[in-house]
Amino acid sequence: MIRFECDYNEGAHERILQRLMETNMEQTSGYGTDDHCERARVLIRQACGQEEADVHFLVGGTQTNTTVIASILRPHQGVIAAVSGHIAVHETGAIEATGHKVLTVPSPDGKITAAQVKAAYDAHAQELSPEHSVQPGMVYISQPTEYGTMYSKAELEALYAVSKACGLPFFVDGARLGYALASKDCDMTMADLARLCDVFYIGGTKIGALMGEAIVILNDALKRDFRYIIKQKGGLLAKGRLLGIQFETLFEDGLYLEISRHAVDVALKIHDTLKQHGVQFLYDSPTNQQFPILPDSLLAQLSQDYTFTFWEKVDHSRSAVRFCTSWATRPENVEALTRDIVSLLQKDKDPAEFTEAVAVLETAAMV
Amino acid sequence: MIRFECDYNEGAHERILQRLMETNMEQTSGYGTDDHCERARVLIRQACGQEEADVHFLVGGTQTNTTVIASILRPHQGVIAAVSGHIAVHETGAIEATGHKVLTVPSPDGKITAAQVKAAYDAHAQELSPEHSVQPGMVYISQPTEYGTMYSKAELEALYAVSKACGLPFFVDGARLGYALASKDCDMTMADLARLCDVFYIGGTKIGALMGEAIVILNDALKRDFRYIIKQKGGLLAKGRLLGIQFETLFEDGLYLEISRHAVDVALKIHDTLKQHGVQFLYDSPTNQQFPILPDSLLAQLSQDYTFTFWEKVDHSRSAVRFCTSWATRPENVEALTRDIVSLLQKDKDPAEFTEAVAVLETAAMV
Amino acid sequence: MIRFECDYNEGAHERILQRLMETNMEQTSGYGTDDHCERARVLIRQACGQEEADVHFLVGGTQTNTTVIASILRPHQGVIAAVSGHIAVHETGAIEATGHKVLTVPSPDGKITAAQVKAAYDAHAQELSPEHSVQPGMVYISQPTEYGTMYSKAELEALYAVSKACGLPFFVDGARLGYALASKDCDMTMADLARLCDVFYIGGTKIGALMGEAIVILNDALKRDFRYIIKQKGGLLAKGRLLGIQFETLFEDGLYLEISRHAVDVALKIHDTLKQHGVQFLYDSPTNQQFPILPDSLLAQLSQDYTFTFWEKVDHSRSAVRFCTSWATRPENVEALTRDIVSLLQKDKDPAEFTEAVAVLETAAMV
Amino acid sequence: MIRFECDYNEGAHERILQRLMETNMEQTSGYGTDDHCERARVLIRQACGQEEADVHFLVGGTQTNTTVIASILRPHQGVIAAVSGHIAVHETGAIEATGHKVLTVPSPDGKITAAQVKAAYDAHAQELSPEHSVQPGMVYISQPTEYGTMYSKAELEALYAVSKACGLPFFVDGARLGYALASKDCDMTMADLARLCDVFYIGGTKIGALMGEAIVILNDALKRDFRYIIKQKGGLLAKGRLLGIQFETLFEDGLYLEISRHAVDVALKIHDTLKQHGVQFLYDSPTNQQFPILPDSLLAQLSQDYTFTFWEKVDHSRSAVRFCTSWATRPENVEALTRDIVSLLQKDKDPAEFTEAVAVLETAAMV
Repeated sequence: MIRFECDYNEGAHERILQRLMETNMEQTSGYGTDDHCERARVLIRQACGQEEADVHFLVGGTQTNTTVIASILRPHQGVIAAVSGHIAVHETGAIEATGHKVLTVPSPDGKITAAQVKAAYDAHAQELSPEHSVQPGMVYISQPTEYGTMYSKAELEALYAVSKACGLPFFVDGARLGYALASKDCDMTMADLARLCDVFYIGGTKIGALMGEAIVILNDALKRDFRYIIKQKGGLLAKGRLLGIQFETLFEDGLYLEISRHAVDVALKIHDTLKQHGVQFLYDSPTNQQFPILPDSLLAQLSQDYTFTFWEKVDHSRSAVRFCTSWATRPENVEALTRDIVSLLQKDKDPAEFTEAVAVLETAAMV
Repeated sequence: MIRFECDYNEGAHERILQRLMETNMEQTSGYGTDDHCERARVLIRQACGQEEADVHFLVGGTQTNTTVIASILRPHQGVIAAVSGHIAVHETGAIEATGHKVLTVPSPDGKITAAQVKAAYDAHAQELSPEHSVQPGMVYISQPTEYGTMYSKAELEALYAVSKACGLPFFVDGARLGYALASKDCDMTMADLARLCDVFYIGGTKIGALMGEAIVILNDALKRDFRYIIKQKGGLLAKGRLLGIQFETLFEDGLYLEISRHAVDVALKIHDTLKQHGVQFLYDSPTNQQFPILPDSLLAQLSQDYTFTFWEKVDHSRSAVRFCTSWATRPENVEALTRDIVSLLQKDKDPAEFTEAVAVLETAAMV
Repeated sequence: MIRFECDYNEGAHERILQRLMETNMEQTSGYGTDDHCERARVLIRQACGQEEADVHFLVGGTQTNTTVIASILRPHQGVIAAVSGHIAVHETGAIEATGHKVLTVPSPDGKITAAQVKAAYDAHAQELSPEHSVQPGMVYISQPTEYGTMYSKAELEALYAVSKACGLPFFVDGARLGYALASKDCDMTMADLARLCDVFYIGGTKIGALMGEAIVILNDALKRDFRYIIKQKGGLLAKGRLLGIQFETLFEDGLYLEISRHAVDVALKIHDTLKQHGVQFLYDSPTNQQFPILPDSLLAQLSQDYTFTFWEKVDHSRSAVRFCTSWATRPENVEALTRDIVSLLQKDKDPAEFTEAVAVLETAAMV
Repeated sequence: MIRFECDYNEGAHERILQRLMETNMEQTSGYGTDDHCERARVLIRQACGQEEADVHFLVGGTQTNTTVIASILRPHQGVIAAVSGHIAVHETGAIEATGHKVLTVPSPDGKITAAQVKAAYDAHAQELSPEHSVQPGMVYISQPTEYGTMYSKAELEALYAVSKACGLPFFVDGARLGYALASKDCDMTMADLARLCDVFYIGGTKIGALMGEAIVILNDALKRDFRYIIKQKGGLLAKGRLLGIQFETLFEDGLYLEISRHAVDVALKIHDTLKQHGVQFLYDSPTNQQFPILPDSLLAQLSQDYTFTFWEKVDHSRSAVRFCTSWATRPENVEALTRDIVSLLQKDKDPAEFTEAVAVLETAAMV
C-alpha cells in the first residue's frame, strides 16, 4: 500500500534524526529554555527578518491554534475564519472548548477576503444591540489553505490592513507554510509574511519534523505571558529541546524550503499529468495537496494499492479525492500513482461524463 | 554543569532512538491508528493483565491529566487531590481551564488517605444545601507522589474501595510510575495497580522516551468517546506512531522497569550516602527523587557545578532541595555529587545546627 | 411613543403584582425551596400531565438555555440548532462560553426538520475519523421560533422520534410557548409537548411575569444534580419564591393561556389588516410576532410614533420589520398602528414595487 | 416558625413594591436601557461621588461575581480571595466554570490583609518557573465579609494600594454592603469605598429589593464591553427596568442606608443581649450576621420555633450558629428570640462548660 492520504505518513527527515542521535545524551534544562531552542529562535527570527519576534515551540496544530486564539480573545469575542478553516471543522470544537465561537464566513476555495472581514466587522458594529451577539475579536486564515490554495501577497496585505483598521489581531496558521512558500506561484517570502500579520506559525509536523510547530509573535501586545497559556493548554513540552533541535536543523541551511519544494514538485507532477489526461480538479491548488475529480469505479480500484482521502461526491459517478505529497514522498511512488491512474482512466474514459461532471462542479463552486 | 534538577534532562533511551531510525521511512496512518500503536497497546494490556483495557497515547503529563479529568467530570464536579498534587499546583490551572475545581485535601507527604476521601465526600453530602458547593466527582493521586513517596498496595486498595463506594472514579497519575514499581519498597505490580483504579497512566517522558504517556482505561464507563476529548484538548499526535514505537520498545523486553530500577538505585545511592553523613531528609522517599536538607552555604557552592531544585527553607541556615535521577543518570555523576556534598559537609558541619534543623522540620511536618 | 419592538415592554400582569403584594412579608426559605415554588411545580406538572417531571424556575432565557445545555452535553459534543436559533445568534456565545459548539443547520423559516437532524447525525457518524469534529449531542428548537413560526404536532413527533433514535436529548425553548399554544393554528397542548421532548421550558418573562422561565425535565436521565448547574451558572434566585408566586398565578386559573391568546389575537389583527391592504410578510407567522414588508419611506415615518424592530432589507426600497404584541398590548394601540400604516401605505403605494419585492423575497426564501 | 437563617426571607420594601405597581404599565425599552435604570445610575454615581463610574444592574450575587471576574482575568490568571470567600466556597465552582482558579489565602475572620496579597503576588513572581502555576490576576474581598466582619478604611486603603502596586484590579463584593456602611463601627462611606477599589457592587437582594445588585466600575480599563459579558453570562435582564426602579427607590431618599441601619440595630440587640448573659461569639461581627456559641441542647429546642444556620461544632456540647437580620426583621421577633434564648440558657447554664468552650474556640481561632 502506497500512502497519499496525508502529509504525515513518515517519521522525520534524516538530518533531524541524525541530530537527535548526536545530541541525545546532552543534558539540558526543560520546557524550551535550552540552547537548542534558543538557537532555533535566532534562526527563525533571521528567516523572518524580525529581531524582536517572540518564538515558541509547540507539538501540534490543534494545540497551537487553541493556544494562540485563547491567548488573544476576551470571553465575549470570536474568531473570524473560513467555513472550511481547520479550527472550524477539524479540531473537535477545541476553540469552543476555550469559550469562543468561530465566526465562519463562506469560502468556495478555502480563502477569505479583506472585504469579508470588513463586512463581518461592520455588520456586528452596526447592530442595534451588538452586545447580544459575539464580537469579532481576531482573524484566522491558513496559508496555504485546507484546500491547497494560497493567498497572494496583495491579498495578505489587504487582509492585514483591514484587520488592523478594525483592531483585530491577524493570525496565520502555517501548518503547511513551507508548501506555500515553495510553490512556484508564491510571490512572497517568510519575511513578507512576518510583516503582514500579528502572529503566525511555521509547521514542522507536516514538513520534515517528527512533530512541532513554531509560533512567531510579531505584535508586542500579544507577547505577554504567552508561556503561561502554552502550559495551561498542555503544550509546554518537558524535553523542549526536541523541538529546538528539529527547528534548528530545518532552518540552518535552508532545509525547510528545500524539502518543501520537493513536495510541491511531485504534487505538480500529479496535477500536470492528470490534467494532460483531461482530469478536472476541485480546487486550483499550486501546493502539496491535489484534488482531482475521478470516476468512482476508478477510485475503487485505485484504493487497493494506494491510500488517499475521499473529499466529496461531485456527481452520480465521480468524486473529488485528495492526494497529499510531502518532504518524504518518493518520486517512484508518484510515478506509479500517475501511471496507474492514467491507465485506469484510459480503460473507462467517457468524455460525455466528464463534461457533465464539470458542469455540476461549476454549479457547486458558485454556491 | 551536571544536572539533577529534573528527570527529563536527556533525550531517549538508545533502543528507542534506534527503533525510530529503523522505522523512520515506514508509511503509517496517523493519529495512533497504526500497527506500532496497536502492538504497544497489546504489550501494555499484557503488562496490566487486562485484555479489555483501552490504551491511548498522549504527549505530556499536563495534557494527560487534563484530558482524563475533563472526560470524566460533569460541570459541577471537582476532583479531589492532595494539596501538593501536580494538578493542584503545577499545571497553571489547566483543570480549572476546563471548568473544574481541584478540591484539595491536606497532605504532609504528598499522599492522601481513604479516610480523607470519605470525609470529603461525606462533608459534601451532608451539607444542608450541597448544590451551593462543588460536588466531589473523582479522586486523583500520583504514584509515586510529587514528593517521591509511594502508596502501598493496602493504601491503594483502601482508596479504590472508598472511591467505588462513593461513586468516584479513581485516577492514578503515573508520570513517574516506573520509579515506584522499581523501588525495592514497592509491594505491587503494574497488574496490581490496574486492578485497583479506574484509569491510570504510564509515564514515558520521564522514563526513557523522548515524550509520551500511556493512558490505561479500565472502567468501561470511562471509555466512550475518549479520542474526541484527546483531540479537543490538543493531544492527538499526528504521527501517533512515534508514541507507539516508543512504548513498544519500553514494554517488549521489560525495558521500562529495567531502566526505572537504575534510576532508583542511583537515587538511593545519594540517599544512603548522605544519610550516613548525618543528613536529614524532608520526605522519606524510596524513589528517584530525594529531598535532603542541607546548609545554604553548602548549596550555594554546590550549585556552581550541579543543578538541583530548591524546595523550601527549613530553618535560617538550611534548605531542602530536590535531586532527581532518571534512567539516564550516569553513576559517575552520582559518585561525584555525593563525594562533593560529603566533602562540603565536612568542611562546615556543625552538629548543633543539625539538631535545630531537625526540630524545626518536625514541627513543620506536623502542621 | 407606542412600543411594538419586543414582548417585554411592560411589567407584569396585575394579578401577579397583586399576589406579590399579598405575600410580600411572608417569610420563606430561599432558592426555590418554599411552598409557592412547590405549589407552582404541582400546577405545572398538572398542566403537563406529568406527575414525575422535575420543574425548576430560572430568571431569563439565555440563562435557561445555557443551564439546560451545559447540564446535558459532554465536552466534545455540540447542540444542533437552526441557524436562526436564539442560542446561535442572540446569546453572545453563551453556549460556546460553556465549551460547546452550536451545530447550525439551514432554515428558511426558523424551524428544523427531523430529516435535517438525521442527516447531521449520520454525516458525523459516517465520517472516517469522527473524533476530529464535534459530535452532535442534543437537539434544540424553539416553539414558536424566533420567526414566529410554529411546529405542528406531527413535526414535533418526527423530531422527537429521530432524536430518540439517535440518542440525542431533545430540548424545546419555550420562551414564547404560550404564544404558540394559544395560536388558533396550534394543534397541540402543553401536555402534548411534554410527551414529545426530553426537556422544555415555559416562558414567563414574555408572558405576564416580571421575569421567569419554568424548566420542565421529563427524561429521568437529565434530572440528576440539575440544581448544581443552575447555581453554578448564576441562575439560582435567592428569593426563589418570587418565581414560584408568579408561576402559581399564571397556572392556577388558566391565566397563562388566556393572556397568551390576547397577544395572538391582536397580532393577527395587525397581520390581517395589513394583508387586506396588500402587504406581504417575510414569514408566515400565526403567533405574536409579525414580519410585514413595508416601504422604507413608510417605516421612516412610522418610527416617529412607534417602535418596532428592523429585520432585513428586502429590496432597494422595502424592508421587513418585526412587530411584537404581548399579554399587555392595548387594543387601542394596535388600532392606531394599523390605521397609521394603512394610511401611510395609501399615500405612497406603488403596485409595481410590490410585485418586485415579492419576487426578490421569494428568491431569498429559497436559499 | 420565625426565620433568622438568612437575609432574604421576605419580599421587598413596601416603597419598592409601590413603585413597581405605579410603573407597571409604562412601556420601556429592554435590557437596562430605560429611563429608570438611567436615573438609578445617576443616583448611584452621586452616592459614590464618581460622575464617570459605569453602573450595571444584575439579578444576583453569584452571577455578579462571575461576570465581574470573568471580564477581568486572562485565561492563566486567578483571583486572590479569603479561604472563606463566597466565590471560594458557596458558588458551586462558578469561577472555575469560567476557567479561573480561586487562589485562597487563610483567614480566621473572613478578611484578608494587604500583606497577604503582597505575599501571594511576590511568591508567584519569585517562582523559578512562574508559568507553571496560576498567575494572580485580581483581588476579591467582601465588605462586610461572610462572617459579618468589616474592613476599616485603613485596611481598604492598604489593600487598594498593594493591589495597585501589583497591577491587580481590586474588586469588592458588596452583597451586604449596606449592613457594613450602616454599622456604627464603620468609618467609611460609599464614596470612600468607591475611591478605594476598581470595581464593587451594591447588594439589593439582601437589602430591600426583590432582587438586584448594582455593579459600579471605577477603573476605566475595566469598562470596555462589559455588557457583552453580562449578556453572555446570562445576567442581562430583559425587563431591566425592574432593577432600575428598585435601585432608584433605594437611592433617592437614603432608603438603602436607612433600612440597613435597622437590620444592624436589631442584630446588635441580639448580640448585646446574649453577651450580657455570658454568651461567646465565633466572630466579632458589628453587622447583620451574628454567630453566637450556644449549647447544642438549647439549639435543638430553639429550632422548634426559629430557623437559623448551623455554622460549626465548637466543642462536644456547643455549636456556633448564625442569626441573620435584615431590613425586614420585626423587632418583636428579635425580642422573642432573645427572650427565648436567655430563658433556655438559664435552664441549662453551666459555667464550667462555657469556660471550656472558650478555651477550645481560642485554640481553633489561632490556627
